[in-house]
Amino acid sequence: MAVIKRLPKYHQCLGKLLRQDVERISSQELSQLLGFTASQIRQDLNNFGEFGQQGYGYNVESLYNEIAKILGLNTVHNMIIVGAGNLGQALANYEDFETHGFKILALFDVNPRLIGLKIRGIPILDADEMDYFINRNDIDIAVIAVPSDRAPKVVEILTKTSVKGIWNFSTAEISTGKNIIVENVHLIDSLFTLSYRMNEEKLEERILKQKMKKVLNR
Amino acid sequence: MAVIKRLPKYHQCLGKLLRQDVERISSQELSQLLGFTASQIRQDLNNFGEFGQQGYGYNVESLYNEIAKILGLNTVHNMIIVGAGNLGQALANYEDFETHGFKILALFDVNPRLIGLKIRGIPILDADEMDYFINRNDIDIAVIAVPSDRAPKVVEILTKTSVKGIWNFSTAEISTGKNIIVENVHLIDSLFTLSYRMNEEKLEERILKQKMKKVLNR
Repeated sequence: MAVIKRLPKYHQCLGKLLRQDVERISSQELSQLLGFTASQIRQDLNNFGEFGQQGYGYNVESLYNEIAKILGLNTVHNMIIVGAGNLGQALANYEDFETHGFKILALFDVNPRLIGLKIRGIPILDADEMDYFINRNDIDIAVIAVPSDRAPKVVEILTKTSVKGIWNFSTAEISTGKNIIVENVHLIDSLFTLSYRMNEEKLEERILKQKMKKVLNR
Repeated sequence: MAVIKRLPKYHQCLGKLLRQDVERISSQELSQLLGFTASQIRQDLNNFGEFGQQGYGYNVESLYNEIAKILGLNTVHNMIIVGAGNLGQALANYEDFETHGFKILALFDVNPRLIGLKIRGIPILDADEMDYFINRNDIDIAVIAVPSDRAPKVVEILTKTSVKGIWNFSTAEISTGKNIIVENVHLIDSLFTLSYRMNEEKLEERILKQKMKKVLNR
């Protein structure tokens, strides 16, 4: 794995630590959280400047901010949400995205009863106007919040616009012919994580038993 | 990191490969995707049986299923969703959870206009009946889909029930006094991932420039 693949992992890990009010962290502790060796971590971060201090470790907040800068996260992304049903409206209500530089400019739907309404001041527009709106408003991310069977049609329209990224909440597997990056949200992965953690104690016993079985079978 | 922390990462990675219709994979390829060494991966999986074949690698589907069994994911979890607004309703509409053994038995809300309605046959019940319902129906996971300011009150009620896991979609930081596992969903992390990937080309140039700057400053 190249440093370019590890940087986002540092950023996410430091973001979590920040939310837990952790002030400083050593490369050893980061190593345990991330699964990379401490010397790999020190070497990666050394590429970009002198972040750590011998005997102190890293300041979580400043390292987080520096990596955000390196990753180019200090730019604003203009987004639209395609689909103004429950999911689209729920996403439009998240203020968190805007705080982090992802600005929702409009929602789009085919339902005449929704077109013209506003969510937190963000207008729901007619899906027919989508491509025109995207190209005129410098939109680079489209969020797909339509039912899975409608997703392919939406993607077909998006590939003809200036959109560079698709954030896909539908379960449809999306393929884009050209240079559009697709990030699929699989909520089930997060639910699995909860389930792993709930099972951890039982799992430790199970692993121990299986190890013993192997030893006995030798 | 212990094997117990790495197993879920294998499971998630293999799940992604399955969705991409990948049939088989070598420990070297897994190593590149996961960031653990190939020998670590072989050693971990060797703990549980003879999964791989020399020269062939691992069969993705059977390894995925075996790890699911080891992780105890072949049991059914009963869930409720607290909050039947846009987000709660959107989550209730995901059929994916049930397919993977997470069964939603009810939604709860305080809004009298919602109580009594059904989403995909799942009833919206009065929030006052929540603790009674949980204990009576063997619920082990509660999904928090209420506004952040209401989350603490909900958690207070949940800590007095048999719930073992909380899947938190609110931005409230939740602390549970007793043995409840909390998994926070931070959608912003997924949006960051999309953004990283959109920036990857630019980032490679930036890294190269900064490396050159360092060399020149020596």
